Amino acid sequence: MSKNNIDKKIILGEEFIPKQWYNIQADLPKSLPGHYNTRESRLATVDDFSMLFSKAAATQEFSKERFIDIPQEVREIYKIWRTTPLVRATGLEKALGVKSKIYFKNESVSPSGSHKSNSAVAQAFYNKSEGITRITSETGAGQWGSALSMACKEFDLECMVYMVKISFMQKPYRKSLMEVFGAKVVASPSELTKTGREILAKTPDTTGSLGDAIAEAIEDTLTHKNSKYSLGSVLNHVLMHQTVIGLEAKKQMEAVDAYPDIVIGCLGGGSNFAGVAFPFLMDKLQKSTPLRAIAVEPSACPKLTKGEYTYDFGDSTGLTPALKMHTLGHNFTPQGIHAGGLRYHGASPLVSLLVDEKVVEARAVAQKEVFEAALLFARSEGILPAPESAHAIKVAMEEALKAERDGTPKTILFNLSGHGHFDLSAYDNYLKGNISDCDYSQEEVNRNLKSLPKINT
Amino acid sequence: MSKNNIDKKIILGEEFIPKQWYNIQADLPKSLPGHYNTRESRLATVDDFSMLFSKAAATQEFSKERFIDIPQEVREIYKIWRTTPLVRATGLEKALGVKSKIYFKNESVSPSGSHKSNSAVAQAFYNKSEGITRITSETGAGQWGSALSMACKEFDLECMVYMVKISFMQKPYRKSLMEVFGAKVVASPSELTKTGREILAKTPDTTGSLGDAIAEAIEDTLTHKNSKYSLGSVLNHVLMHQTVIGLEAKKQMEAVDAYPDIVIGCLGGGSNFAGVAFPFLMDKLQKSTPLRAIAVEPSACPKLTKGEYTYDFGDSTGLTPALKMHTLGHNFTPQGIHAGGLRYHGASPLVSLLVDEKVVEARAVAQKEVFEAALLFARSEGILPAPESAHAIKVAMEEALKAERDGTPKTILFNLSGHGHFDLSAYDNYLKGNISDCDYSQEEVNRNLKSLPKINT
Repeated sequence: MSKNNIDKKIILGEEFIPKQWYNIQADLPKSLPGHYNTRESRLATVDDFSMLFSKAAATQEFSKERFIDIPQEVREIYKIWRTTPLVRATGLEKALGVKSKIYFKNESVSPSGSHKSNSAVAQAFYNKSEGITRITSETGAGQWGSALSMACKEFDLECMVYMVKISFMQKPYRKSLMEVFGAKVVASPSELTKTGREILAKTPDTTGSLGDAIAEAIEDTLTHKNSKYSLGSVLNHVLMHQTVIGLEAKKQMEAVDAYPDIVIGCLGGGSNFAGVAFPFLMDKLQKSTPLRAIAVEPSACPKLTKGEYTYDFGDSTGLTPALKMHTLGHNFTPQGIHAGGLRYHGASPLVSLLVDEKVVEARAVAQKEVFEAALLFARSEGILPAPESAHAIKVAMEEALKAERDGTPKTILFNLSGHGHFDLSAYDNYLKGNISDCDYSQEEVNRNLKSLPKINT
Repeated sequence: MSKNNIDKKIILGEEFIPKQWYNIQADLPKSLPGHYNTRESRLATVDDFSMLFSKAAATQEFSKERFIDIPQEVREIYKIWRTTPLVRATGLEKALGVKSKIYFKNESVSPSGSHKSNSAVAQAFYNKSEGITRITSETGAGQWGSALSMACKEFDLECMVYMVKISFMQKPYRKSLMEVFGAKVVASPSELTKTGREILAKTPDTTGSLGDAIAEAIEDTLTHKNSKYSLGSVLNHVLMHQTVIGLEAKKQMEAVDAYPDIVIGCLGGGSNFAGVAFPFLMDKLQKSTPLRAIAVEPSACPKLTKGEYTYDFGDSTGLTPALKMHTLGHNFTPQGIHAGGLRYHGASPLVSLLVDEKVVEARAVAQKEVFEAALLFARSEGILPAPESAHAIKVAMEEALKAERDGTPKTILFNLSGHGHFDLSAYDNYLKGNISDCDYSQEEVNRNLKSLPKINT
């Protein structure tokens, strides 16, 4: 039970939906190493990115303007679920027996059940306004695919999703949700693309990979008229779209006279962490406001804590420009027993730079402790978290318990990026004792990285 | 896309969570026929109900006080998700091309994903405060079981759920959600009760029924110490707990200077419809404020539109008191192809009386048109509705289109009682064309009712 006289939820009216995104490129401690066009051995340009993305998104990718206007049409769609609640986790605080104040931003209330909708709506709008009629993308677990499907429906765009075959088979409900929102969803590798047909000819029994799905989506984009590709994380413009999370959270914390000592987000590609943390990091970078920002990754996919900060491709076949990032190598796939999401081999260039500059801390957590934290959170706060988000919950708990031991209660903010309504089979496995930890030694990571050809920049 | 200058969501702070429930028993046009104890051939009493329910709930069942205080402890838990948003369905209005204003109350944001949590928390609290340590109930589709599981966890009560075997097998995720919230869930009929063992001995292959599950839950309650039973609809006290929905909606509509011409809720047992409609019906009953209130049932379970208004049992075996209600007969089970929920054979005595007195309208809708409405709503509003709630959506659409034809735009309010995240297999069937309509002729209904022994009161 929560305590009295504390606002459980801080909810602001829709006039508080931010009017601009925050672009951290304006405030970086050193300039961001450019994306690299390896085919032509030069830095990638807006024009390179415009081949695949809307002109507006491509321009944002390279922009150093501090604030970029959110189009009114995007804010209108945001109103469906934004502003999202900032919640004081009184139940969790009580369960832990801590005096620290734990807040979370509840992004699970969106149409797709996760923060992914924030960028999907923006990308769909820009494509629509540039005369595009069809967007292609890939999805693994399905959060991004759901978000893009709904966003395309709002702007009457066709949506084509290549869904990694193993997810397609194991998560039929995610697929159905995308279809409810009007998208066309196929299992990847598929018969629809040359890439897919070649993979199937070679390995007919493959369960697919995100790399294959990206390759199919890109081929599909390039072979269809008025078609563009869309990505749900990693890139600068995608992270920027997510800053509505932290910008709202700042206003909400202001309303209760609070400011976080620690901001926490889980990290797959980086959009979740960046969304909640970048607007607070603005204060740290501009005014040296004391703040710890922690990006949490699974020990099953430890690019920030064990990977190398180097140029690597975004997909497994080298179709994309090379990005300077913390990476495990673009051929990396986590072990099959990993159920908690956040499986991408690289971290966004922006977060990678901030980790390298020691502005942001990175931490890896193991699978079982993540599900244990998720269960405690569900039981004390009444919200079933996505396993991804539970990585942030776990570290929020650790930090609150440490602060208690130190006798210095903190104000902690984490991003509850999504709900776990479509992840109950993973929870079921945990409850049955069928979830185990999996991680990689530094030697294994290094060995894999060495096996890859060095990218010349 | 929604229009400008309209508040998409009207959200009030937690100080607007009602402090009292509204008890419509104070304002009925004629007195409610009493619940009947058929074993002792007399009207049932608070003491009869206290055998199974908390003393507080049993007292509320018979109370005629107009407003009953909501305990502070219950309001504290309500704060986890209440107040819930009142949403202007601008996307749906645009898709329909109507000038009517359509509002919906979004109860899907609760921990269980439906309005059921409103009563579950109250019932759990009363039991806890009376020294009970364990609550038993049954669940069909799983909304009630999820709500009760979470409510019991909030008050550290054991929760034991008998889940109809066919649902247990077909909806494993609902079961997992209850387990995440700490409940024990068994398929009914089970080996845990004498009733269950007898049924299994007779019919080992049975897929179970709500009637069997109720019988098991009641036996379990009576054979365990400090244990009580709990019901999620039909009874007066349960409907009263749901009036927080309509009480909040009134304040929210006031905030935008609106008042509904038509209030719509779907009806299984009645808690959903009552929750949104009773607080508005108070005005109609007290001050003759013009208002149409429509209870929507599936044509696959047409108790209000084709059933008889008579005394009948609440369960299939006659363990419960007899209630005067619109009923299809307590042995009724809808056809297996019915996927849209709302399968209970009887309507709550309160709603039944109001329909009989023509204060409330009843309407039956067919399955395919309900899923079609659900899809349009999901695509225009970004929220996947529970199939149950989609019955209300369908009628809201009908009324808005009729108002348009008549040239008299209306203000329409419906209850979005829950989300459909656990119903995607039904949606998948609809998208694949595997959903068909099913209904009953008046003759079939009459024939079934005649086959039952008349209950003497």
